Amino acid sequence: MKSLIKTLALAALTLLPLTAMTAESDKSASDKTHKVVFEVTSDGPEKWLGALRNVENAQKSIGAKSAKFEVVMHGKGLGLLLAKNVAENAELKEKLTKLHADGVIFAACENTMRRDKVEKKDLIEQAITVDSGVGEVIRKQGEGYSYIKIGG
Amino acid sequence: MKSLIKTLALAALTLLPLTAMTAESDKSASDKTHKVVFEVTSDGPEKWLGALRNVENAQKSIGAKSAKFEVVMHGKGLGLLLAKNVAENAELKEKLTKLHADGVIFAACENTMRRDKVEKKDLIEQAITVDSGVGEVIRKQGEGYSYIKIGG
Amino acid sequence: MKSLIKTLALAALTLLPLTAMTAESDKSASDKTHKVVFEVTSDGPEKWLGALRNVENAQKSIGAKSAKFEVVMHGKGLGLLLAKNVAENAELKEKLTKLHADGVIFAACENTMRRDKVEKKDLIEQAITVDSGVGEVIRKQGEGYSYIKIGG
Repeated sequence: MKSLIKTLALAALTLLPLTAMTAESDKSASDKTHKVVFEVTSDGPEKWLGALRNVENAQKSIGAKSAKFEVVMHGKGLGLLLAKNVAENAELKEKLTKLHADGVIFAACENTMRRDKVEKKDLIEQAITVDSGVGEVIRKQGEGYSYIKIGG
Repeated sequence: MKSLIKTLALAALTLLPLTAMTAESDKSASDKTHKVVFEVTSDGPEKWLGALRNVENAQKSIGAKSAKFEVVMHGKGLGLLLAKNVAENAELKEKLTKLHADGVIFAACENTMRRDKVEKKDLIEQAITVDSGVGEVIRKQGEGYSYIKIGG
Repeated sequence: MKSLIKTLALAALTLLPLTAMTAESDKSASDKTHKVVFEVTSDGPEKWLGALRNVENAQKSIGAKSAKFEVVMHGKGLGLLLAKNVAENAELKEKLTKLHADGVIFAACENTMRRDKVEKKDLIEQAITVDSGVGEVIRKQGEGYSYIKIGG
C-alpha cells in the first residue's frame, strides 16, 4: 500500500511542473508587451515620412514603454535608411533619431542592398542589416510579433 | 495515512482546474470563429469598392455567421467612411449598409481625422472611431485576429 | 480505502494525456517549420517577378526544407498565373517552375477568375484554385501561417 501511495504522490508531483509551465505560457500569450514588425516597401520621402508617422502613432496608441518595434526596409523602402536621403530631409532625420532613441530597431535588407549596390557605410548609423527583409518579417511573426505592411 | 491520501486527493483536485483551463484554451485556438482585421489605406471609389468586395468575399468563403470582422480605415482609406463620398456612390452605400447589418465593424482613425480636419459628424453613421488605425490593427492581432492589408 | 486509492490513481491517469497534449502543442508552437502565406495583388510582369523574388529570398533565408509556402493570387495578381503571360516571360516561367518543384503552392482566386472570365485551362498547369483568395489567406493565418502582403 505504501508503495502505491508513493507512486501516486510521485505522479502528482510529476504533473505539477508541466501544468505550471502551461499556465505560464497561457499567461505570456495574454500579457501586454506588444511586439510589432513593420515592413516598409514604399518609395519616396513623403511615403517614408508617412511610414514613420504610422510607427509613431502606434507607439502613442500602445505605449512606447510596453512595445517592442522593428521596422524592416526592403525594395524601394531601403531609401528610407540611406544616409544621403536622410541628410536631405530634416523631418525624416528627426523622426528616425527620436524613434531609434526610443528603442525602435531599423533593419535594412541585404538582398536589396546587393541589388542596389548599397553598402553598410551608405546607411544611417542607426540601421542594422538583415540577410533578407521578407525572411526577417516571417521570423518575427513566428516569434509572436504582429505585422503591419506599409507600401505596395 | 488518511492525511496523506487527503493531501493527494487535494493535489489532484488542484490540478484539475488548471488542466481544464489549458484544454479549453487549446480548443479555442482551433475553433472555427475566424476573427479578421482589415486595414484599408487605398484611395478612390474604385479601390474602396474593391476593398469592400474583399470583405464580402471573405464573408462568403468563411461564413458570415462564424466570423468577426473589423475594417479599419486610415490615411487615404478614410475617404471610404466620409458621408459625402458614400452619398455620391450607390454601390458603396449599399455594400456598407449590408456589411454593417451583418455585424462588420467600420472604424475610422482619429489621427487621420485630425490631419484631414474630419469630424465625427462628417462620417457615415455606421462608423466608429479609434484613437489610432495602426494601433487598433496591432491590438486586434494581439487578440488573435488574422490580418488583411488592403492598399499600398 | 482501496477504492479511494483507485479513484486517485484513475484521476492521475486521466490527467496525464491532457497534460501531455498540452506540452505537445506548446512544443509545436515553437518548432522550426515556418509556414507562410503570401498574398499577391500587384500588377504587371516586373512586379510579379519582384513578388517571386520575395518568395525565393524568404526560402533562402529560412531554409526551403523547413518551410511550407503558399502564394495566393487575386485581383491584378492573377495575371502571374495566366499561361499566356508566363509563356511570354522566360524569367517568370523559370522562377515559377523552380519554386513549384520546391513544393511552393500557387493558388488562384476563383472570384477573380469569374470577374476576369478566366478559366482553369487558362492558368499554368502548376496552379491550383481556391474559392476566395482573401478567404484562403485568412484560413491559412488561422492555421498558424505567417502573412506577407505583396501589392497595394
